[in-house]
Amino acid sequence: MPAKNEDLHGNVPDKSPVALLLIDVINDLEFPGGDALLDYALPMAERIAALKRRAKQAGVPTIYVNDNFGKWQSDLGKLIAHCLEDGVRGRPLVERLLPEEDDYAVLKPKHSGFYSSTLDTLLAYLRARTLVLTGLAGNVCVLFTANDAFMRDFHLVVPADCVASIDPGDNAYALRQMATVLDADRRPSTELDFVALKRGGSAGC
Amino acid sequence: MPAKNEDLHGNVPDKSPVALLLIDVINDLEFPGGDALLDYALPMAERIAALKRRAKQAGVPTIYVNDNFGKWQSDLGKLIAHCLEDGVRGRPLVERLLPEEDDYAVLKPKHSGFYSSTLDTLLAYLRARTLVLTGLAGNVCVLFTANDAFMRDFHLVVPADCVASIDPGDNAYALRQMATVLDADRRPSTELDFVALKRGGSAGC
Amino acid sequence: MPAKNEDLHGNVPDKSPVALLLIDVINDLEFPGGDALLDYALPMAERIAALKRRAKQAGVPTIYVNDNFGKWQSDLGKLIAHCLEDGVRGRPLVERLLPEEDDYAVLKPKHSGFYSSTLDTLLAYLRARTLVLTGLAGNVCVLFTANDAFMRDFHLVVPADCVASIDPGDNAYALRQMATVLDADRRPSTELDFVALKRGGSAGC
Amino acid sequence: MPAKNEDLHGNVPDKSPVALLLIDVINDLEFPGGDALLDYALPMAERIAALKRRAKQAGVPTIYVNDNFGKWQSDLGKLIAHCLEDGVRGRPLVERLLPEEDDYAVLKPKHSGFYSSTLDTLLAYLRARTLVLTGLAGNVCVLFTANDAFMRDFHLVVPADCVASIDPGDNAYALRQMATVLDADRRPSTELDFVALKRGGSAGC
Repeated sequence: MPAKNEDLHGNVPDKSPVALLLIDVINDLEFPGGDALLDYALPMAERIAALKRRAKQAGVPTIYVNDNFGKWQSDLGKLIAHCLEDGVRGRPLVERLLPEEDDYAVLKPKHSGFYSSTLDTLLAYLRARTLVLTGLAGNVCVLFTANDAFMRDFHLVVPADCVASIDPGDNAYALRQMATVLDADRRPSTELDFVALKRGGSAGC
Repeated sequence: MPAKNEDLHGNVPDKSPVALLLIDVINDLEFPGGDALLDYALPMAERIAALKRRAKQAGVPTIYVNDNFGKWQSDLGKLIAHCLEDGVRGRPLVERLLPEEDDYAVLKPKHSGFYSSTLDTLLAYLRARTLVLTGLAGNVCVLFTANDAFMRDFHLVVPADCVASIDPGDNAYALRQMATVLDADRRPSTELDFVALKRGGSAGC
Repeated sequence: MPAKNEDLHGNVPDKSPVALLLIDVINDLEFPGGDALLDYALPMAERIAALKRRAKQAGVPTIYVNDNFGKWQSDLGKLIAHCLEDGVRGRPLVERLLPEEDDYAVLKPKHSGFYSSTLDTLLAYLRARTLVLTGLAGNVCVLFTANDAFMRDFHLVVPADCVASIDPGDNAYALRQMATVLDADRRPSTELDFVALKRGGSAGC
Repeated sequence: MPAKNEDLHGNVPDKSPVALLLIDVINDLEFPGGDALLDYALPMAERIAALKRRAKQAGVPTIYVNDNFGKWQSDLGKLIAHCLEDGVRGRPLVERLLPEEDDYAVLKPKHSGFYSSTLDTLLAYLRARTLVLTGLAGNVCVLFTANDAFMRDFHLVVPADCVASIDPGDNAYALRQMATVLDADRRPSTELDFVALKRGGSAGC
């Protein structure tokens, strides 16, 4: 017997066992350590952009999971405008990863993408069981989101080259924690095979 | 000892023991019964608009709690544009209740404003304890939101003239259920005194 | 790809598309109106006991979804002992519906069985999609639980003869609300066919 | 204006700005690595028992936050009986930390004490804002619970000598992560001053 409302009134038209999450990449980086983070975040953004193109070709939906900043008004458009027009440090990051018409977006008030947000419901309607996590910061919002995904029994893929933190040591440790405690696959993005992931086999190519 | 982050990084700059909620008023009304509902919704919108002006004068924040429609992209601006520009039935409703720069907005995927949304967190940071509920539909989304608010120990005010349903009998019964089971005050909006509500006394003037 | 831990470490050994919920039947009925409720609750308990036997024969698990009373110590055994040994009004109700070794139990702190409880997770591991709701009080805890189940896309069956409220008029209205807004099937328990329900067809026999 | 039901119908009779959490100490330790963990867990249990006595003297409530094992029946008594009577490895651990009549207990289905449990509601009624976290395993359930507590703006105290993991290196890293990312105070239990903590000042004596 199917769920009573298969697409949640058009909100979730896609069905895919795999989803690509971009965490806090719509980011002005205007905080202490933001300049150091930018050095890692820009090459990371190039790799995420390439990964996102390949996801799209494979029919894997992309979900932006992002902090709100400024008053809570559930308006992603305003956040993007702030990053592009207000002379902020994160502008080149955001320019490389602008959402497209067929992407999803969930705003989160705290570190984990699952906490007090709509992410759980969106993923249930997508029927996603495997999440590819990318973005910032590896040892905070990505790790918190990964922990919460693990408790919900998602299979986790966290390509090591698509995650960045202010401190590279913290980034490495967070990736190790995700691999050992959360069973996450951390192979580099170039080795990810979305078609294999969708079939439910190994992530690799 | 205060919460660690009093304003949630600027997302919730206000503090108020009372909040005014507008439920599903950004609405194209393009569903069966929508034309009947419009007849009730337009005068309701006038009354809510007047109530909202008085709330603002009293320093009571307004929160739009609204269904998303179309793909989930957390973009209230797109929803408003659809209602204003696509020739939909709900346009005059939305025109009367456009969000302003100092209003909050929370998108919800289901009937209750609390389910799988950020409303809980927003209200915690506002320090709101009393909610004034208004909007559509009285016997569905308003009632579901009221139930969830009651379980969270909010004091409820549901002005009977600021709530509408497709069927007036269902609307009346929902208001009665909110009064008897949820201890809601359903006096008409013209008798609401926000200053008294903020002091924690009776809702009335 | 299956969930990572199919039985949640032995906590949920069963798999069934249908589950039978007994709401607040472990109840001392020591509250205003409890004596009036007892008159309805005793014959209701006989019908629920018969329904539970048939559920068991059909391999449908039973879940007690119950208020805690007394200090929060997650100890159903203590609650049952209180009802049986402390000379309370609800003793004959509880005697008719004692949990058995193969039943599940979830304690809830508020009206809805889903709020701040483990029910969501238990039902996910059972893979239940259809819930048969029974118990007390029809217009409060049963209705709140039904609303929350509906938002989670469960199919609802609420046998009218297995639900009781202090006021019969409120009970009738709650059943009507569940039928019209929540699409609940309210046919009497004697007409319920668990085998058909498990196949995903009509509830009836 | 107070919450509508200050003690949640007797479930939460205490009020305290500080609460002591014992995580997964009712534990049979019957899993790979359990014997190694026992070596650390027994001296840890002695220190937690001493800390719990001091908490009680200071009027700070203790909450057991514990995995269920065996079928989900919300029956802490059964879990304790299993640990004491079935010849399991964890018996001496459990004997040192048996719950008392005035303790609270919350069962959790997953790693974090907050996920799909009643902990949030219990802490809200206690009015707790500072949590002292102790127990097993430091790099999994304690860390997951700490992350979730941090997102809810609790102040965290995690005495380094009251937390144990299978691998001491993982334990040390988890404590460092809690100190640097979650602002947790990790001073040893002997230096904790509950009276000062309740006043909202520094944790230390």
